[in-house]
Amino acid sequence: MVVLLLLAFSASANASNYLTAPGEGAFALVSQEGAAAPLIIDVEASAGLRRAVTDLQNDIQRVTGLQPLIESTLPQNAQQVVIIGELGRSKLLAQLIAAGKLNVEGIAQKWDGYLIQHLRHPFEGVEQAWIIAGADKRGAIYGSYDISETIGVSPWYWWADVPVIQKDNLYLAADTRIEDFPRVKYRGIFLNDEAPALTSWSQEKFGGYNAAFYEHVFELLLRLKGNFLWPAMWNNAFADDDPQNAVLADEMGIVMSTSHHEPMMRADKEWNRYGEGKWEYSTNPDNLAAFWEEGAKRYQHREGVFTLGMRGQEDTPMSEGENVALLEKVVADQRAILAKTFTDRPLADVPQVWTLYKEVQGFYERGMRVPEDVTLLWSDDNFGNIRRLPTKEERSRKGGAGVYYHFDYVGGPRSYRWINTVPLGKVYEQMSQAYEYGARTIWVTNVGDLKPMELPIDFFLSMAWNPTRFNGDSPKAFTEQWAAQQFGSDNASTVSSLLNTYTLHNGRRKPEALEPDTYSIDNYNEASRVAADLQAASAIAAELQQSLSAQYQSSFFQLVGYPLWASQAVFELNRHQALNARYAAQQRALTNDMATATQGWFKRDAELTARYHQLKEGRWNGMMSQPHIGYVNWRNPPANIPPVLHTKALAQPAVADMGVTVAGAQTYWPANEYSDEALQLDRFTFFGESSRSITIYNRQSKPFTYRASTSAPWVQLSEQTGSVTDSKNLAVSIDWAALPAGVSKAQVSITGTGWGGATVNVVAEKPETNAIQSAGGFVEADGYISMPASDGRVKQNTDASQWQRIELLGRTGSAMRAWQAADKALSGTEAARPYLEFPLTFFSTGEHTVDFYLSPSFGVTPDNHLRFAFALDNHAAVTLQGAVDKKDWAKGVLDNVRKVTATMKVARPGKHVLRIYLQDMGVVLQKIVIHTDEIKPSYLGPPPSRWVVKAK
Amino acid sequence: MVVLLLLAFSASANASNYLTAPGEGAFALVSQEGAAAPLIIDVEASAGLRRAVTDLQNDIQRVTGLQPLIESTLPQNAQQVVIIGELGRSKLLAQLIAAGKLNVEGIAQKWDGYLIQHLRHPFEGVEQAWIIAGADKRGAIYGSYDISETIGVSPWYWWADVPVIQKDNLYLAADTRIEDFPRVKYRGIFLNDEAPALTSWSQEKFGGYNAAFYEHVFELLLRLKGNFLWPAMWNNAFADDDPQNAVLADEMGIVMSTSHHEPMMRADKEWNRYGEGKWEYSTNPDNLAAFWEEGAKRYQHREGVFTLGMRGQEDTPMSEGENVALLEKVVADQRAILAKTFTDRPLADVPQVWTLYKEVQGFYERGMRVPEDVTLLWSDDNFGNIRRLPTKEERSRKGGAGVYYHFDYVGGPRSYRWINTVPLGKVYEQMSQAYEYGARTIWVTNVGDLKPMELPIDFFLSMAWNPTRFNGDSPKAFTEQWAAQQFGSDNASTVSSLLNTYTLHNGRRKPEALEPDTYSIDNYNEASRVAADLQAASAIAAELQQSLSAQYQSSFFQLVGYPLWASQAVFELNRHQALNARYAAQQRALTNDMATATQGWFKRDAELTARYHQLKEGRWNGMMSQPHIGYVNWRNPPANIPPVLHTKALAQPAVADMGVTVAGAQTYWPANEYSDEALQLDRFTFFGESSRSITIYNRQSKPFTYRASTSAPWVQLSEQTGSVTDSKNLAVSIDWAALPAGVSKAQVSITGTGWGGATVNVVAEKPETNAIQSAGGFVEADGYISMPASDGRVKQNTDASQWQRIELLGRTGSAMRAWQAADKALSGTEAARPYLEFPLTFFSTGEHTVDFYLSPSFGVTPDNHLRFAFALDNHAAVTLQGAVDKKDWAKGVLDNVRKVTATMKVARPGKHVLRIYLQDMGVVLQKIVIHTDEIKPSYLGPPPSRWVVKAK
Repeated sequence: MVVLLLLAFSASANASNYLTAPGEGAFALVSQEGAAAPLIIDVEASAGLRRAVTDLQNDIQRVTGLQPLIESTLPQNAQQVVIIGELGRSKLLAQLIAAGKLNVEGIAQKWDGYLIQHLRHPFEGVEQAWIIAGADKRGAIYGSYDISETIGVSPWYWWADVPVIQKDNLYLAADTRIEDFPRVKYRGIFLNDEAPALTSWSQEKFGGYNAAFYEHVFELLLRLKGNFLWPAMWNNAFADDDPQNAVLADEMGIVMSTSHHEPMMRADKEWNRYGEGKWEYSTNPDNLAAFWEEGAKRYQHREGVFTLGMRGQEDTPMSEGENVALLEKVVADQRAILAKTFTDRPLADVPQVWTLYKEVQGFYERGMRVPEDVTLLWSDDNFGNIRRLPTKEERSRKGGAGVYYHFDYVGGPRSYRWINTVPLGKVYEQMSQAYEYGARTIWVTNVGDLKPMELPIDFFLSMAWNPTRFNGDSPKAFTEQWAAQQFGSDNASTVSSLLNTYTLHNGRRKPEALEPDTYSIDNYNEASRVAADLQAASAIAAELQQSLSAQYQSSFFQLVGYPLWASQAVFELNRHQALNARYAAQQRALTNDMATATQGWFKRDAELTARYHQLKEGRWNGMMSQPHIGYVNWRNPPANIPPVLHTKALAQPAVADMGVTVAGAQTYWPANEYSDEALQLDRFTFFGESSRSITIYNRQSKPFTYRASTSAPWVQLSEQTGSVTDSKNLAVSIDWAALPAGVSKAQVSITGTGWGGATVNVVAEKPETNAIQSAGGFVEADGYISMPASDGRVKQNTDASQWQRIELLGRTGSAMRAWQAADKALSGTEAARPYLEFPLTFFSTGEHTVDFYLSPSFGVTPDNHLRFAFALDNHAAVTLQGAVDKKDWAKGVLDNVRKVTATMKVARPGKHVLRIYLQDMGVVLQKIVIHTDEIKPSYLGPPPSRWVVKAK
Repeated sequence: MVVLLLLAFSASANASNYLTAPGEGAFALVSQEGAAAPLIIDVEASAGLRRAVTDLQNDIQRVTGLQPLIESTLPQNAQQVVIIGELGRSKLLAQLIAAGKLNVEGIAQKWDGYLIQHLRHPFEGVEQAWIIAGADKRGAIYGSYDISETIGVSPWYWWADVPVIQKDNLYLAADTRIEDFPRVKYRGIFLNDEAPALTSWSQEKFGGYNAAFYEHVFELLLRLKGNFLWPAMWNNAFADDDPQNAVLADEMGIVMSTSHHEPMMRADKEWNRYGEGKWEYSTNPDNLAAFWEEGAKRYQHREGVFTLGMRGQEDTPMSEGENVALLEKVVADQRAILAKTFTDRPLADVPQVWTLYKEVQGFYERGMRVPEDVTLLWSDDNFGNIRRLPTKEERSRKGGAGVYYHFDYVGGPRSYRWINTVPLGKVYEQMSQAYEYGARTIWVTNVGDLKPMELPIDFFLSMAWNPTRFNGDSPKAFTEQWAAQQFGSDNASTVSSLLNTYTLHNGRRKPEALEPDTYSIDNYNEASRVAADLQAASAIAAELQQSLSAQYQSSFFQLVGYPLWASQAVFELNRHQALNARYAAQQRALTNDMATATQGWFKRDAELTARYHQLKEGRWNGMMSQPHIGYVNWRNPPANIPPVLHTKALAQPAVADMGVTVAGAQTYWPANEYSDEALQLDRFTFFGESSRSITIYNRQSKPFTYRASTSAPWVQLSEQTGSVTDSKNLAVSIDWAALPAGVSKAQVSITGTGWGGATVNVVAEKPETNAIQSAGGFVEADGYISMPASDGRVKQNTDASQWQRIELLGRTGSAMRAWQAADKALSGTEAARPYLEFPLTFFSTGEHTVDFYLSPSFGVTPDNHLRFAFALDNHAAVTLQGAVDKKDWAKGVLDNVRKVTATMKVARPGKHVLRIYLQDMGVVLQKIVIHTDEIKPSYLGPPPSRWVVKAK
């Protein structure tokens, strides 16, 4: 079972299943006796493979302290050998194949594939061999790093200080045979938006974006079984900054390209250095052509993917506007340059890509085409929602398709550049769809400064290796496994829960987009509940950190502690700003405490950054220097900006001055007098929240005594009198037994300082007894029925059409995705389709509003409008459309939810059934809220309603 | 002319017209040779008169250093004597009358009347006599104090430290003869809401509200020619606190009563001390009757006015609700007690009053009546607007009517207890109407702590003496004369302008009701203009104070400096709060300067209070201790409450961060990006404001350079580039010559820090040349025509029906009141009536909105709905109704304006005439605003439009 699970997810992860205990037949990489099996590679082996094997040699030493020898021939006395080679460039492998001892047919023609096989008596005098056979250079490299990972060297050992746990011996499972190869051809990342963090760090550590720096990037990519890179380009030019950069990439096996708006293998910044005239093809074609020709020549003998087309400089639209004819000429001329340069092969075999980013997709939609050997790189909306995928016709294009995705973005409506904000469920949901709909040639994701994105980078590249191994459970399971890899299996459960907590939180709204009023401090205890969740996780993280040994401190802080605690700090900074402002408006003496707390959270953020920068004597100095507090639009602030604070000096000499308010009210007594704003507790309902709160507070500093009384015996108070120094919450509840059915009203009266006193209205509504007794399922209370979509019962799923539960997706932590296989049409009426079923009980009747909370994704083919349908009981199904309206896009990506609203007629109280029918691929349903009364504003919407299991 | 003017206004003021220089025939009160004429009163003279004459004796000494003798018979050797007596209690007067030397017929039957006459050779051996003959005791007293005032002792010499200017001699004009008597029978004040200020002060200085304290109140009242008092009653009981209180009042000639809710001459607080059972007549009539009987007996032999009826304790409605039958029984039973007690005269001759205050007026309107010998005391709405006056039928009631008025109030929508907020024009406007409509028996006004109300008290009692001497100019002229009396005629003009400035300001909105957003910091430079006016006056006051001699310092500070400067402090406190909040919202670095300034104004207020309390070594200690900052409803705060401040810590190390905004915008660049809020200057119009402002500011602390450019040559900028440290205003204006007729649009672009820059839209509208050349009168500009009502030309006034200009009335400083004599019906169509005429020029056409700004007064008889009518050109007149809608009352009294809105069809551009026709009595029109475009929010409304005198 465990092995199966591991196989289910990740390329890197699937490595670890052949490490075993010493025992009969196991291969001793390092034996109990202290012998390290030599690593044998052919003298003909490529330099890139040689590097990887040297890494393996070092990795074995890191684990065991013993350094195996690297040999080019079979040693005389080796009982056990590791043979690593690329098919066609390894004599030993050729011998084994010829001898019928090694079958490589399964990988022979597989791009980047590799075979791992345990052989007994492969050669005369050799007892066991551990074979790593690559279908090509990268295949062999991946196989080699597969051992590294298996024996306990995390791909992140260097980039995140993940400790290597010492072992005395290393045994590999007998009879292991693994054939593996990637399902996506180019799998890579884009270093982007790389200043100030990555830039200042690389400058300090390496002197810039040179080969010494990129060597670490390439190694990481290979350990993660990636092969593709768009290099840093904000103020950098990969091939020009250090001529060794391109040389090293090619040697190590990294396929280079240039980002979507940098054609022909030349960095945008190179034009500034060498270009003559303007970056405008209409007026300056000759100079541009000459410039591009240099790029083609540069990669004439290196592995690369040529970006075609053109945008303006610095990633802006062309100044010529939407000139399709011009852009088609650009592409034709670029291809002519390639044809002239690459005389060794047909033009169609020179990898080329046209990225349909932002307005460029519009060019395509309005008819612009490129030859079919060019890969079409579809893009997301910069916020993780792929805008378009190939249609059935497009899926047959020779050049195939890919996806340009984002974990980091600079632009509107708000940049996110700082920390990991990507819930893995979102990546799974989007990329599984991309794969199904034919985006299988390039997967590249913008990772910003690389560093804070360790987890999603690993997930993205793992999934790119083989998306078919992933399903809706994978995001969660992957996280746990990743946690185990970095922190040991004992801590995996705790760490993964911490990772899930912070990514759920940042996935609800990115820290840069948090505002003081994002989460309601008024309704549903929303902000308090979020605070409690983050605080609980933060405390667990602090406790865990205490318990971890010294070697884990740095990695734990980088991968878990910092993103969690810093996310909490930014959230609390905003929450306390809201409380500070509200308390100020309500003249609470506690206003100042909230100001102090706000300052404290600002300082806490700075301290966390400083701690990050001080890890391991400054090993990551500068890496968290991205300003992230003080956004007012997409531009990042020039520094973290201390927020405006509200303070209230208290009168001297001290006086007492009572204020009274209720949860959810912005006003207070006595300011509400001579206004229409009565203080009123949210209506109590039988199945709703059992207690509501009246806050009696001091507007000044001298304590006072209050007295509270009720106008009806069914209103219960937690206290009738007491002293108030700064604030006191009086809990109000209902004695339901003393209340008749129907709506009842009463008052709570409170006196304290000054003339008169406050009156708080109380309304309670109780259903008839038989209605209470017959309730079942989700029950109406507090004016709504709110249901997580994943609590629906799934019915009528088929192989091709399914409501799929995806973990770590959406604001609720799991969501239901409508899956429709690419080439299988959905047939039949709603009734025949997969649906989600929710049993409900209403006490009210009427034309209720219902909100469907969807992920803000796109229907990724032109005919997909993200339709779905719902029906109450046996009423006709109502079809709704979840596709985004352009003007709502910005709100959707900031909220990470798009609400689709309908009405639902409930003709009689009692039990009902709601069904939600699948129609279009890709609808992601997070939550359903039926309004039976006015719904109070909040960010997440009302919390889930009570589920009543009817007795008997 | 001067004499006439003086006679025109005030009883106290009319005294000063018989002081003269030494010369032939003049009466030497104190001669150049140093002889003081003896003061002769009969041995039979009342103790009260004797006190007044002793005061006169002292006053003469105060002025000259010479103390005249008080004699009871003609001295042997006196050439000049002053004879003071009450008709019927003075042998010397009787002799003169009998000898035909003194004619007292003009005052003989006049309540409180007096005669002043210069006689030559009245008696053998006496060369000249100065006769003061009172028709009764008070008449003689008034005559005596008349001399005091004439020779330069202000009625406020004790209560406001008004200095007595030294003179060597005192001569009174030869042949003076003055007959005078009051037109209102009872003229008085109500000491109310008297804690903490008056209470703490009287406690410190006198040990409480005892006879030593009241002696000063009574003397002041008499010097002001008042005769009536409702004593302090918050925690006091006049007759019970000090048995001498009632004795002294009667002796000095003060008619005592108890306030409107304290029946039968017993203080509310006496019930707490002596009452048995509850204060409820339905359940406790016997104890109440016994309690009241004590009150009747107490005043059996003293001058008093019995309050009838009943409210709840502490000035609240009766707990029995609106029980008319019960209240009628209360009155009947009270009258039975009076009938039983006063056996010396008919019940109808015992002065009784029923006050129709708050809900009690409702009892009356719904039919409750009291016998017609009881005076009906009609009330204002607590904010100076009389709610009701007698109808024609009611005016014939024997008991007559009166008015209970307020200069100070505790209650909703907001109390005003601190400082003088009463523009005299308002008092004149209301009380002249009251007199005309028959309220002539009692005028009593609530004066709070007495002290800060010196000016309106003096005006109210002066006017009560003889309202017929007052007209629409009187408020202004009285102020100047009053200023002359207190500060000398050299300073009268300056002082009166300072008094007018602060009362205009406080009359626009009471300090307690000021909010940071009252005056617009966005539009029409409103808050800045108010600030400039107050600052100019404050500076003049400071300069004047410097120039005044030591003896004036205390009175100047109390009467002028403090109310002006403290009014400014509270206004600026609010204005800086608004700027602080706005700057905080716009992230301006100057936020903190605004916070500091706000604190500074709070401190300034406290310092002014402290200075007041330190005057003359603490003579007025505690008198300004009324908290006045921090109101949130009607209850006064327990202390002056420091406001909430907004502060913005600046990032360290320093960074630069540009913000751009425009006058009137709440948003700013770059926060307005990704919102619908463009930055846009208010539209420029030809006759409108010539310059509009763009603010370029730093959100942080490092200076930066900005660049500004325009998209059109007709947009002119005051500067194209510059350095910004904290903030810079760029003036934008229009080169009208370069602009065609019609609407033109352009942009100003500004770059500074960060990517991109701000765009500010500019729109300018220019009429056709011939339209410009033919414009005249008030011209449309900036989207409106705004006109002070008093700029209208008055047409067709008659004696009985008039549009009257009243000075010091309304927000504009003068207003037009529709006057309709009480018993003369208005006849004829609109066209025949008095009207106000305004020539206008429109450039736009359409259905324009027109706002009529009225004073928030009432139509004081049931058939008066405050109607008026308007007509544009020859269109049919449209009748509007200015009577208050109950729900708008609170807003009206806070704003001191009620807006009546209509529409006005303008069919063609060009010149028009607006006419406003009189209909109902009492309409007070302050301002007319015709909206030709959207009007921006402000408190005062748009400032007056340009008046164009057409060339030709």
